[in-house]
Amino acid sequence: MSPKITTELLKHLRQVMKNPRYVQEPVQAYIVPSGDAHQSEYIAPCDCRRAFISGFDGSAGTAIVTEQHAAMWTDGRYFLQAAHQMDSNWTLMKMGLKDTPTQEDWLVSVLPEGSKVGVDPFIIPADQWKRMSKVLRSAGHDLVPVKENLIDTIWTDCPQRPCKPLITLDLSYTGVSWRDKIVALRSKMAERKVMWFVVTALDEVAWLFNLRGSDVEYNPVFFAYAVIGMNTIRLFIDGDRMMDPAVREHLQLDSTLEPEFKIQVLPYGSILSELQAVGAGLSPKDKVWLSDKASYALTEAIPKAYRYLTPYTPICIAKAVKNAAETEGMRRAHIKDAVALCELFNWLEKEVPKGTVTEIVAADKAEEFRSQQKDFVELSFATISSTGPNGAIIHYKPVPETNRTLSVNEIYLLDSGAQYKDGTTDVTRTMHFGTPSAYEKECFTYVLKGHIAVSAAIFPNGTKGHLLDSFARSALWDCGLDYLHGTGHGVGSFLNVHEGPCGISYKTFADEPLEAGMIVSDEPGYYEDGSFGIRIENVVLVIPAETKYNFKNRGSLTFEPLTLVPIQTKMIDVNLLTEKERNWVNEYHQKCRDVVGAELERQGRHEALRWLLRETEPLAPVQ
Amino acid sequence: MSPKITTELLKHLRQVMKNPRYVQEPVQAYIVPSGDAHQSEYIAPCDCRRAFISGFDGSAGTAIVTEQHAAMWTDGRYFLQAAHQMDSNWTLMKMGLKDTPTQEDWLVSVLPEGSKVGVDPFIIPADQWKRMSKVLRSAGHDLVPVKENLIDTIWTDCPQRPCKPLITLDLSYTGVSWRDKIVALRSKMAERKVMWFVVTALDEVAWLFNLRGSDVEYNPVFFAYAVIGMNTIRLFIDGDRMMDPAVREHLQLDSTLEPEFKIQVLPYGSILSELQAVGAGLSPKDKVWLSDKASYALTEAIPKAYRYLTPYTPICIAKAVKNAAETEGMRRAHIKDAVALCELFNWLEKEVPKGTVTEIVAADKAEEFRSQQKDFVELSFATISSTGPNGAIIHYKPVPETNRTLSVNEIYLLDSGAQYKDGTTDVTRTMHFGTPSAYEKECFTYVLKGHIAVSAAIFPNGTKGHLLDSFARSALWDCGLDYLHGTGHGVGSFLNVHEGPCGISYKTFADEPLEAGMIVSDEPGYYEDGSFGIRIENVVLVIPAETKYNFKNRGSLTFEPLTLVPIQTKMIDVNLLTEKERNWVNEYHQKCRDVVGAELERQGRHEALRWLLRETEPLAPVQ
Repeated sequence: MSPKITTELLKHLRQVMKNPRYVQEPVQAYIVPSGDAHQSEYIAPCDCRRAFISGFDGSAGTAIVTEQHAAMWTDGRYFLQAAHQMDSNWTLMKMGLKDTPTQEDWLVSVLPEGSKVGVDPFIIPADQWKRMSKVLRSAGHDLVPVKENLIDTIWTDCPQRPCKPLITLDLSYTGVSWRDKIVALRSKMAERKVMWFVVTALDEVAWLFNLRGSDVEYNPVFFAYAVIGMNTIRLFIDGDRMMDPAVREHLQLDSTLEPEFKIQVLPYGSILSELQAVGAGLSPKDKVWLSDKASYALTEAIPKAYRYLTPYTPICIAKAVKNAAETEGMRRAHIKDAVALCELFNWLEKEVPKGTVTEIVAADKAEEFRSQQKDFVELSFATISSTGPNGAIIHYKPVPETNRTLSVNEIYLLDSGAQYKDGTTDVTRTMHFGTPSAYEKECFTYVLKGHIAVSAAIFPNGTKGHLLDSFARSALWDCGLDYLHGTGHGVGSFLNVHEGPCGISYKTFADEPLEAGMIVSDEPGYYEDGSFGIRIENVVLVIPAETKYNFKNRGSLTFEPLTLVPIQTKMIDVNLLTEKERNWVNEYHQKCRDVVGAELERQGRHEALRWLLRETEPLAPVQ
Repeated sequence: MSPKITTELLKHLRQVMKNPRYVQEPVQAYIVPSGDAHQSEYIAPCDCRRAFISGFDGSAGTAIVTEQHAAMWTDGRYFLQAAHQMDSNWTLMKMGLKDTPTQEDWLVSVLPEGSKVGVDPFIIPADQWKRMSKVLRSAGHDLVPVKENLIDTIWTDCPQRPCKPLITLDLSYTGVSWRDKIVALRSKMAERKVMWFVVTALDEVAWLFNLRGSDVEYNPVFFAYAVIGMNTIRLFIDGDRMMDPAVREHLQLDSTLEPEFKIQVLPYGSILSELQAVGAGLSPKDKVWLSDKASYALTEAIPKAYRYLTPYTPICIAKAVKNAAETEGMRRAHIKDAVALCELFNWLEKEVPKGTVTEIVAADKAEEFRSQQKDFVELSFATISSTGPNGAIIHYKPVPETNRTLSVNEIYLLDSGAQYKDGTTDVTRTMHFGTPSAYEKECFTYVLKGHIAVSAAIFPNGTKGHLLDSFARSALWDCGLDYLHGTGHGVGSFLNVHEGPCGISYKTFADEPLEAGMIVSDEPGYYEDGSFGIRIENVVLVIPAETKYNFKNRGSLTFEPLTLVPIQTKMIDVNLLTEKERNWVNEYHQKCRDVVGAELERQGRHEALRWLLRETEPLAPVQ
């Protein structure tokens, strides 16, 4: 992977930063955040402005360009990738390390007195604007909104914003109709004495209306906003997709409805002016509810006194707790996904020794097997298919320049998942197709111990996920090993593979408490730069637990793995496991046999079934 | 314990809340926080305003009185105590429970439109003012500073503010001279480009000048402020204590010094006007550094643009990392403390069966034994001496009305500590002087497993203490048990028994990373309302650990127990321990034998030595 040469681009950007055609006053620094106008993690090609200017295309990162410097902030998952993709114009700022300055502190340290720092007000979340603006102001600088996106002015071949057809989901998938979701939302609004709710996150719009799209790769969402009043519903969406009879029927656009369920469809681009009109028409006690991560531009449309901002919206919280239809859908999706992976690993086992399977071939094969399953829609993220040293690049994606051939001498790490119409999957398995070294087995086993510690953890109702993060690290810590990423993220139901408001990470604190029905990933790892990467990931469902004393009736929770793919026993040093851990592995494998075995049988995939049975043999007793 | 009758007091307070002599405009609510003007946790009698108005005298709690309501917010340690001490005029707001409103939300829910909420601006921390004020304003109310403290106006027999003599500490105790501490502070100030630093916390003033006092019971501090400039030192302190020749010598008040080390002594009450003068004289780029927990009154003295606020001051952070002299002092103090407790437990074992030992007698006896030790100054907090159901009141203090007699049928919990001139101690042991039930042993053993999980934890350098909190709960959680308090707090060196910026608690997030030399407590517990309380607490020192892979040279940390008091083996169900836990107990007890045994021998305390030897016999092997 050779870095993108950005000398000319940066020169051009620095020119427009001073060009009165685009900026009221010259800006001495320009911030290019990761996200789009919806603060999405995964974005459409037209929104990949940070990747365009820097070359670094990981999922998280913020670029700042000043007259003298160009710097990129990203986290531990991307240190290696960013270093590879960026040329020497760029300084990598490793977030999470002690000596790395914050963006604000860095700006203060490099800017001349009284500088202007520009940013697109549609791209920067309001909470981040507030924090940066405060620090900059107190150091004598100004954060200023630049209406025209400066990257777009120099990006001559910028792709069009996608506008693809929609998918309607019926009750068998969603469990709750969009009308009932609106009713529940309005009742939350009434509780907080709020008159309006602005839906800005793409997955929240999709969830609310039981619609899905494909405007953004991997995330089944579509570009739209919604503004929900106590008696009105406005949906801001472009294109002729609202002409689709199935969509019109689903949203009852042509029916005689109670007025409070009548959806008014408006152009996507009219959100700001419509919201400004809402803002201008508010009575003294009216409030407008927005996520505090909504864009600065939309937030400013509502006068400050009328804003009701929360870190998590009621939709975000409701969406996280899956109902019975969604949970069953997720189970089905994970069984199909396991079938595909049994096929893949069986195939790899035969093909790898021939020396013809590259990371890209393996990733494509995984997609091929998945696409054979019912209701398959697309992948849920770019497959991380990595062997040997590439495995240490935490969010690696194989490209021709880096594409390595799998061999019997290296560890292979596959982190992949799919969108099925009934659910979203995300699974990581680390395999060795030859004989792993004692050290590789040792590291794998510590990671497995951490995985089990979280998966089997019992905790009181109301516990926040971040309190479980250290359980995943304890076995690694004992030997002086660690990993620089969180342990888990929320997973959507045929929606984004990463979603809030819960997760398992030492980095967050404001996550919502875990409750039964929530779904998160459990994915500790260990990475040795230049050598290998290990990660073991299951998607797990929060379920009630049975405990001896049940927390004085507060209730007990634990996890049930939805992912049912064998964990390679060849990689396990059984002597490092406790009896309890060994039993966990054996019981997990028995469930894989029972559930996935039956499905392999049903699908007539006998060779993969034999592979599954062999890979799920009980572990030898601990010596 | 009968509740304080507050009907008349509240009536009186509600009158002054409307009396133009004290308030510019009537206030519809008045907030009475816990703290004093230094945001101390332990306060002098003259500052116990919340206890005066409500009867509840726990160390943490905030009272709010409106025209109709009186409500008290406190945390899990004090739910039972507060319920006992307050009459029916008061509503208890149990912090940490899901349905308990915040103070702000509650105010918004009960106040009539456009209300004024009053508070003493010297008592409320600036960060709390900001948070409350924002919520109140957005709901149409106003938080207003009431200069005269309204409780003081109705507290006719309010005691005088103490003004006791000072103790000077030489280098053998402090390891660093006050001049060197000023130099280090100024270098931190220069790093942040700050011209002034305002020392508002009492323990920070004491630490900075290597002085101690006794103005506040249990905390060896004195009422003072300091303002440190790059070339000036101002100490605000009352009374003739500055006339003491030892103090004058220590501070070199009468020597010819470089001007930047010359201390200017000013009256305690002049801090506000002096700070306002500093504020008025600032040049455009000057900054004044204050804790964001400094009082609203002092913070407001500095114009907003000139304030540099941080959650932890450089003194707070420097003070937390103990140097060699301080660490050795803490070790000595803990050995002496262990001698006193061996004497006590030996004595209790003989006396309890006679039925004559009450909780107060036991607490007094503990103090008596401690006071026999060299350099004993006072207790470090009110002894929690509690038997049977009183043990479930987490921060119980025996008083004649509640005083229970120790018996061979109940669990006894003693949480106590002392100030020695060389260090501060804090230790909890839970004992049974008869035959504990299987259930009591089961609970005790889970608590012990949690204690060991933290004490033996290995973690990478830079880990925050809150990430270790769940380790202490895991064994309890597995059985559906938990405790409603944090696991540990920072401990001062002959200073406050609770100090920042580190600790081990699920409740904090902004704690500073643990580093070698920090000292915290490790004190999980389990409480059964109406039956018993269990807690096992050691003070532990953060030390470098040896690990196989040492976190890629990031460095490994673990804890060394400073407390060396036997853990009652009679209470342990050995079969619930792992081999590793059993070895931990045996090694810990061996160290108690070696170190404390030698000191008991040296002090000729042969009976207590025999008790120690018996209590530290190795545990039977795990079956």
